[in-house]
Amino acid sequence: MKPEESTLLTIVAESALERSLVAELDRLGVSGYTISDARGRGRRGRRSSGWEHSGNIRVEVLCDGETATRIAQLLREQYARDFAMTTWRQAVTQE
Amino acid sequence: MKPEESTLLTIVAESALERSLVAELDRLGVSGYTISDARGRGRRGRRSSGWEHSGNIRVEVLCDGETATRIAQLLREQYARDFAMTTWRQAVTQE
Amino acid sequence: MKPEESTLLTIVAESALERSLVAELDRLGVSGYTISDARGRGRRGRRSSGWEHSGNIRVEVLCDGETATRIAQLLREQYARDFAMTTWRQAVTQE
Repeated sequence: MKPEESTLLTIVAESALERSLVAELDRLGVSGYTISDARGRGRRGRRSSGWEHSGNIRVEVLCDGETATRIAQLLREQYARDFAMTTWRQAVTQE
Repeated sequence: MKPEESTLLTIVAESALERSLVAELDRLGVSGYTISDARGRGRRGRRSSGWEHSGNIRVEVLCDGETATRIAQLLREQYARDFAMTTWRQAVTQE
Repeated sequence: MKPEESTLLTIVAESALERSLVAELDRLGVSGYTISDARGRGRRGRRSSGWEHSGNIRVEVLCDGETATRIAQLLREQYARDFAMTTWRQAVTQE
């Protein structure tokens, strides 16, 4: 385990999506993720009326950049129309 | 929603400040934030005796750099004297 | 409190390690950290059979780069053999 450059992808979404998101990550072969509960206010999905202080989850995936791109693309295609969701990536160094 | 450079501002503060911080973010026109519960030990506010494993919140705001600067400045001016609070920013890519 | 470059070290580990990790951080002279509860799936420790949706903690330490290196090294030496744990660092600007 020497330090290596990785990508940290963070997804904030409605709690109701937890099972579904975990299944998608499994299908994409993601080996690790961290989920914590959160609340907040976010950008509207294209169809959604936005979400206000509802139960959210915050999912973190430590992966390579290509995997992050595949996850983000899948989320845009499968969820962005119907669900409020915010996703961002950062470069990190895994220790 | 194409990838765009954004700033992630993270604020760790005492839980008692949640309503107040949310009101400040609203006043500043911030459209989205994520709050999760946390505990920990932090730097002392200028007047505070520090905080030890008390109930904290962790607030994340995804915004542009200018907004992050305005939020950080407001927090310094309005809260730093009386409350323990730690704030940091990172460059992220919003997907 | 002018903006200054810092390192954010994030540690995801089994909840059972919280007391132990906090004691290590104290010994290393770390002045602040934030802990939140999480769940997830992670990489296996060298001996562990991995961890699946168990109770995890997410520990964030805002420190200088040298301290982050000392913490990461200690975690590798003392915990990596027996416990599932993921650690990463990022450059951040403390406000």
